Amino acid sequence: MTLTLFLARGTISMSVHAALEEAGLPHDLNWVDFSKNDQRDPAYLAINPKGRVPTLIAPEGTLTEAGAILQWIATQSPGLMPDDPWQAAKLREVMFYLASTAHVAHAHKMRGHRWADDPAAQAAMTAKVPQTMTDCATWLEDRLSGDWLGAAFSVADLYLWNVALWLPGDNVDMTRFPKLAAHSARVAARPAVARVIALHDG
Amino acid sequence: MTLTLFLARGTISMSVHAALEEAGLPHDLNWVDFSKNDQRDPAYLAINPKGRVPTLIAPEGTLTEAGAILQWIATQSPGLMPDDPWQAAKLREVMFYLASTAHVAHAHKMRGHRWADDPAAQAAMTAKVPQTMTDCATWLEDRLSGDWLGAAFSVADLYLWNVALWLPGDNVDMTRFPKLAAHSARVAARPAVARVIALHDG
Repeated sequence: MTLTLFLARGTISMSVHAALEEAGLPHDLNWVDFSKNDQRDPAYLAINPKGRVPTLIAPEGTLTEAGAILQWIATQSPGLMPDDPWQAAKLREVMFYLASTAHVAHAHKMRGHRWADDPAAQAAMTAKVPQTMTDCATWLEDRLSGDWLGAAFSVADLYLWNVALWLPGDNVDMTRFPKLAAHSARVAARPAVARVIALHDG
Repeated sequence: MTLTLFLARGTISMSVHAALEEAGLPHDLNWVDFSKNDQRDPAYLAINPKGRVPTLIAPEGTLTEAGAILQWIATQSPGLMPDDPWQAAKLREVMFYLASTAHVAHAHKMRGHRWADDPAAQAAMTAKVPQTMTDCATWLEDRLSGDWLGAAFSVADLYLWNVALWLPGDNVDMTRFPKLAAHSARVAARPAVARVIALHDG
């Protein structure tokens, strides 16, 4: 079984790419170049009408939404999500927060056109991003006590690491969030993740 | 075991309330009155610093984020999420879409202050909601083929029903989305859901 991942540099698809590497699942990469607006290409929209990444093609079909793909990968390889229902729920809580609040807050910097047509409104959204992302970092910092979000490493840590990559560029003062900074460094030091970072930076 | 749900009328917490009823799990309700700004009360913020609903108090601890709570409830009662990993993933895909795209698009109508301070920017966001929610309804309509999102009823159907409640108020022309309208009616006709609707309308 070979999987195909449609991904773009620097986007939330990095977390899925890293999860495939962590799981050791064979996969092909299909890079979507946002600078060329590849995500709006009719051939890509036929695969994912949302025009977003990631998209995963598996033998069972097509799957989108980073949080859903991450959890599916965890069903294909042991040790990437806890078996205990409550522990899994607490990680899903963070994943839904990342998807619905932190990622969305970040998107208001460059993609305000999704929610308002007026350029002045888009500029007003951009201006508030340092504040909203600092609020997100505050909540996330509070969730970290040990090395990982849960008792062991999980796909939720990859999701958090991916979103936290955006914080410095969103003008969040990382010296205020030492646990988050240490968590990011810990994830980035994992061999599978380091391989992914090299491909995205290359 | 008695659970406590903090909820507010008309909000996404309705889906969690309905899931508790579907699952037959004993629970107390703790209503948060948004018209009195209860969600900003220090006592509530001590429970959920995000100042949002739903919040579920279980013997294991406190859980937030509708998508995470719905899936945890499904671990406490059979038949509310499929066992098959791919089928579960396809439902999680819809749940993440609802959380990160549809609910967020709806929130720009009344809660633009989350993302911009300028009242003119907030008005520009409100103006675009009929378009963004119509786009969401288009994607969701395409996901429905049978009676439910999956092969059987699941908590994902409750999540979809809850978000779809907002579509008429967001000026989405429901005659364009007959499968979505039929799905909403099908969910609302379930006895457990009908009990919840009566409590929220009362």
